[in-house]
Amino acid sequence: MKVHGAVFTTASRKVFACLYEKELDFELVPVDMRAGHHKKEPFISLNPFGQVPAFEDGDMTLFESRAINLYIAHAYEDKGTQLIYHGKKMAILSMWMQVEANQFDPVASKLVWELVIKLIFGMTTDTAVVEVQEAKLGQVLDIYEVRLGQSKYLGGDDFTLVDLHHLPNIQYLMGTQVKKLFDSRPHVNAWCADILARPAWLKVLAMQHNN
Amino acid sequence: MKVHGAVFTTASRKVFACLYEKELDFELVPVDMRAGHHKKEPFISLNPFGQVPAFEDGDMTLFESRAINLYIAHAYEDKGTQLIYHGKKMAILSMWMQVEANQFDPVASKLVWELVIKLIFGMTTDTAVVEVQEAKLGQVLDIYEVRLGQSKYLGGDDFTLVDLHHLPNIQYLMGTQVKKLFDSRPHVNAWCADILARPAWLKVLAMQHNN
Repeated sequence: MKVHGAVFTTASRKVFACLYEKELDFELVPVDMRAGHHKKEPFISLNPFGQVPAFEDGDMTLFESRAINLYIAHAYEDKGTQLIYHGKKMAILSMWMQVEANQFDPVASKLVWELVIKLIFGMTTDTAVVEVQEAKLGQVLDIYEVRLGQSKYLGGDDFTLVDLHHLPNIQYLMGTQVKKLFDSRPHVNAWCADILARPAWLKVLAMQHNN
Repeated sequence: MKVHGAVFTTASRKVFACLYEKELDFELVPVDMRAGHHKKEPFISLNPFGQVPAFEDGDMTLFESRAINLYIAHAYEDKGTQLIYHGKKMAILSMWMQVEANQFDPVASKLVWELVIKLIFGMTTDTAVVEVQEAKLGQVLDIYEVRLGQSKYLGGDDFTLVDLHHLPNIQYLMGTQVKKLFDSRPHVNAWCADILARPAWLKVLAMQHNN
């Protein structure tokens, strides 16, 4: 199994976290994004949209991190952590996967861009954007606070792909002023502490340090 | 089965199209969005994010249109059109569902907003936004053109949820200057003509006229 990606991107990290949870061996093929290699051959033969990561498992080639993780969770269901459900429980899980993708990620990604990535590239944070997105994130987390008062994890009583997909953005935001939005909501705070401490996630962070 | 929605919204129309393809009876519970009823009780008990549609099937309550449709396609697999696959074919389908959600929809939705919805509300189209988004849509459709030269539909050889999820935005854009971007690509053009003519989709358009 191969992941063509870059260890600092949130989308690549979603897939690494999933593979570590499933206790699967994989080879990282680094894509030099600073040199624009994700927009050129041979990478765009793997993903014509020119975005990391791309994934290979035998004759299967996939891109889009959430689809890659759904494939891994189904194809290797008997390995490592059970990250999905079946039937009606899976329908609820799918709904919360959509919530992560459509409600949480657009807001969190903008904040990560403004407060983390821009600084790495020597650009200036737009504080007006941060203010707007912080207010939106607060509204999303208010709904998460209610949900996490009803079930231990967002998708149900177990850690699943839903929680996993939140990890990369939350990890980055915990190093910023946005941390207060997570800390001030008790159920959200406990959930963050729980999922950020998962051994599989710590392995992803160790990759970061080694590359 | 009940759909709480508004017949003009693209998200509600995704679910109606799915229910008609599956030949399932449902009750439409109209949500008066102009009066802001999607942001108030009782609707926000169905979807705390305050967005249509919400869906009820017995004791199941779901929101997020793509998750609703995945539930319907799995729970009623033996009814009407087979909208999903299994195994590796489903992994490919899931990837293209993500493409619709992450590559096509953000661009198409902005164009629908500028060129259709704003006019309905007496607002003015921002031509600079249209120009940028048209260029982006062209890039997405270039990739679709290659894909549709390899398989009849985006998710594989059959009409699936992937194609269905494109219908509401494409329907709106076909009434605008953006139509040329679809017409000028032969495989995309043939695909649009095919999916827009599906009887289930024509039933959704008939709802529009009656409400």
